[in-house]
Amino acid sequence: MGRLAALGIPAARVDAVFISHLHWDHTGGLAALLGLRAQTNPQVPLAIYGPPGTAEMVKGLLASMKPGAASGYGVPGEGTIDLDKLTSVTELRDRASLAYRGVKVSARNNTHYSFAPESGLAERFEALSFRFDLPGRSIVYTGDTGPSSAVEELAAGADLLVAEMMDVEDTVARTRSFNPDMPDSRSLAMEKHLREHHLLPADVGQMAARAKVKGVVVTHFAGHERDDPAHFEYLRQIAAHYAGPVVIANDLDVF
Amino acid sequence: MGRLAALGIPAARVDAVFISHLHWDHTGGLAALLGLRAQTNPQVPLAIYGPPGTAEMVKGLLASMKPGAASGYGVPGEGTIDLDKLTSVTELRDRASLAYRGVKVSARNNTHYSFAPESGLAERFEALSFRFDLPGRSIVYTGDTGPSSAVEELAAGADLLVAEMMDVEDTVARTRSFNPDMPDSRSLAMEKHLREHHLLPADVGQMAARAKVKGVVVTHFAGHERDDPAHFEYLRQIAAHYAGPVVIANDLDVF
Repeated sequence: MGRLAALGIPAARVDAVFISHLHWDHTGGLAALLGLRAQTNPQVPLAIYGPPGTAEMVKGLLASMKPGAASGYGVPGEGTIDLDKLTSVTELRDRASLAYRGVKVSARNNTHYSFAPESGLAERFEALSFRFDLPGRSIVYTGDTGPSSAVEELAAGADLLVAEMMDVEDTVARTRSFNPDMPDSRSLAMEKHLREHHLLPADVGQMAARAKVKGVVVTHFAGHERDDPAHFEYLRQIAAHYAGPVVIANDLDVF
Repeated sequence: MGRLAALGIPAARVDAVFISHLHWDHTGGLAALLGLRAQTNPQVPLAIYGPPGTAEMVKGLLASMKPGAASGYGVPGEGTIDLDKLTSVTELRDRASLAYRGVKVSARNNTHYSFAPESGLAERFEALSFRFDLPGRSIVYTGDTGPSSAVEELAAGADLLVAEMMDVEDTVARTRSFNPDMPDSRSLAMEKHLREHHLLPADVGQMAARAKVKGVVVTHFAGHERDDPAHFEYLRQIAAHYAGPVVIANDLDVF
């Protein structure tokens, strides 16, 4: 929400949200967005698109808002806030496609999860990558994913590939140092998840080259910042596979 | 969450949260805090203290996290996240008092709401101000409130009064300009709420003088920023009633 404010975009003017998957570092801001909209402009539903489970998540968020809606502002005679009108949720699955205000949106299930076949979880959950075909420009957002031929298909020929990227060793070391009490079992599961379900710099380069995209912006980046010599090494590792322009984005960059 | 990160405080090291009232600009960040804790250190419950309705709010947030907990990270054999162990909620009412790790915490119901007597809402909801008596230092946080003798009693002789403050005309004009579609009924209710249930600069000065506090930090401030001549006028209006030191805080200031 702070980033929206820094860009001068009021919460009431956000019309739609596309959610790639239900990990909380990708959904944690939705409660604040719904709350601020309800406080200022509750008449226009926020269109929320996301993978299976999105409706249940939003239902919980709206339930969390019931006490606040019941109390209101304590002004006798004030209107009521109808939480049922605050959102409009559409769940998307692999190969979903929709038209949103002149933009064609396409989704593919990527490799951010690798559920055990007998768990039944693959039928229940997906992690999505999105392609937005705007008039004159095509942008693909990987969301979180490991290497994925589905995402390469989705991104074929796109003007811009907005790709996640991960320095696994650095991220594991940093997370452990911030959370010294983290159980080993969780730390090991996290490392396996990071290695298999995210993109290393070389993976980003290979994906961009195979999809023949016209440029790459790296986001959701976990690793050394620009003040560290290791940072430039990431660009070198991408360039070993992909010859086009690459930027590792900072917050609030616009491309 | 961005502010915590800027201060170098990991989410896992936040032990407790005190919520003054259930307006969403005061609760919108809780979902992100719970999510990040669940992703890093789910074994230590976050202690959440707040007014009546807090338990229902947290229950909704935890319900919203169920799909994310069920999918986990898609790593076969990973542990499960027990959402029931993520929080420990204590609801507080007027005159509640508790000891938290050597800090005495006291709460008073303030005047942020003025429910119609026949509505029954005053029995269901309260907006709290908190006093924290630490070893050697006492800090009072008004939360959101209008002028209130209860808060003045709570703040009596405190080292620091952390007080909200509002420039009503400026806030109404700004909110309307950001939300041109806001219904008039909501805008009028908002203005009535702001005038009666928040502190004007003179109110802050009077509260500080009556409570005989040793200093004032203004927070939750809505009005002109320091680059506007009107800003200094707020300090003048406070000083007309209170002779002690006053600072209108910026984010990340430490006192």
